[in-house]
Amino acid sequence: MVIDKHLSRRERKKLETRQSLMEAALRLFSESGYDATTVKDITDAADVAKGTFFNYFETKETILPAIAARRLEQLKEALTVERGAPASPVARIKLALRLVAEDPLCEQQLAQRLFAAIMRHRDVNPGHALRDLLAEQVRQGQEEGEIRGDLDPVYLASVIRSLFFQQLVIWHHGHRPGPLPMLIDDLMDLLMEGAAGTGWPRLS
Amino acid sequence: MVIDKHLSRRERKKLETRQSLMEAALRLFSESGYDATTVKDITDAADVAKGTFFNYFETKETILPAIAARRLEQLKEALTVERGAPASPVARIKLALRLVAEDPLCEQQLAQRLFAAIMRHRDVNPGHALRDLLAEQVRQGQEEGEIRGDLDPVYLASVIRSLFFQQLVIWHHGHRPGPLPMLIDDLMDLLMEGAAGTGWPRLS
Repeated sequence: MVIDKHLSRRERKKLETRQSLMEAALRLFSESGYDATTVKDITDAADVAKGTFFNYFETKETILPAIAARRLEQLKEALTVERGAPASPVARIKLALRLVAEDPLCEQQLAQRLFAAIMRHRDVNPGHALRDLLAEQVRQGQEEGEIRGDLDPVYLASVIRSLFFQQLVIWHHGHRPGPLPMLIDDLMDLLMEGAAGTGWPRLS
Repeated sequence: MVIDKHLSRRERKKLETRQSLMEAALRLFSESGYDATTVKDITDAADVAKGTFFNYFETKETILPAIAARRLEQLKEALTVERGAPASPVARIKLALRLVAEDPLCEQQLAQRLFAAIMRHRDVNPGHALRDLLAEQVRQGQEEGEIRGDLDPVYLASVIRSLFFQQLVIWHHGHRPGPLPMLIDDLMDLLMEGAAGTGWPRLS
């Protein structure tokens, strides 16, 4: 999130504090684990008073969906071709899934905490933001002819997102060996090419 | 489950009582809801003493995965061609998903209870049985040439199962209109045909 220059100093300061808290929290959660990190640890690292935390977040848990939403904003930027993302929308979907998979928030313990937080606070659901971000890439893939035009982009995006998280959980549990990028590529290749064998009547 | 004729009368009686309890429970859960049904209601309906229930199931909750396992046994039988199932393995996968979707256990409230029970009692996981049942159909589809031979059957089965439950949840929430069989057909068609447009280089 780029901080708008037209905000008042007070508003700018507030956004900066919110971002510092989120950055400090993510760093501490990754380093020391979610449970071992206290709100005081986070405010100390962000160099604000402990009470300040609760001006921005209801509980320690509610900072997690906020961090996820922010990471998705950053992901959106990373997917623009001007920022060096691949020209192929399907390749951008693979890149997006790879970046999500490698995000510190998707580390097993933290991801479980995040999902629990989302279940309890349904007003902020970063899952929808991820689906919408993927749907935008699907739309672009349809414009470029990479993806069939008859598919609902939101439908295909929800299918991609669901498969991705399921495979990620399987990978976390060690049930699927091999590097994570290969898992993502396999999944997207299956979804693109389909499972039909030569004995199956193609629709086209 | 067919009761083996070679069992002793005592063993046969035990199996019959277990099945009566599961049948009564499923009927009562469907009619009156899981929460409103007591263990006493179940034992009354199965015509046994209340304490008998606990000779077979630890708690009211643990009967749910047992019922699911039994339904999957019955599903396996319904998928044999001798019992009138379609000759095409892919058509049989669609049939299997349709039967699961229409099972009283997949009714929204009951399905949530079942998932919670599975999370707490990981020793009985009907999800694995469903995956293995689908994997067997995938293997047959590969033999008949309907499904690409280079895919791991268990992998493809886990992809099908995961997509199916995700779409079922979306359908339950009313986010996806239309009849359930159409949802299942759409999903399997996408997975068979793939999402690639004409501008995408086919692997073959």
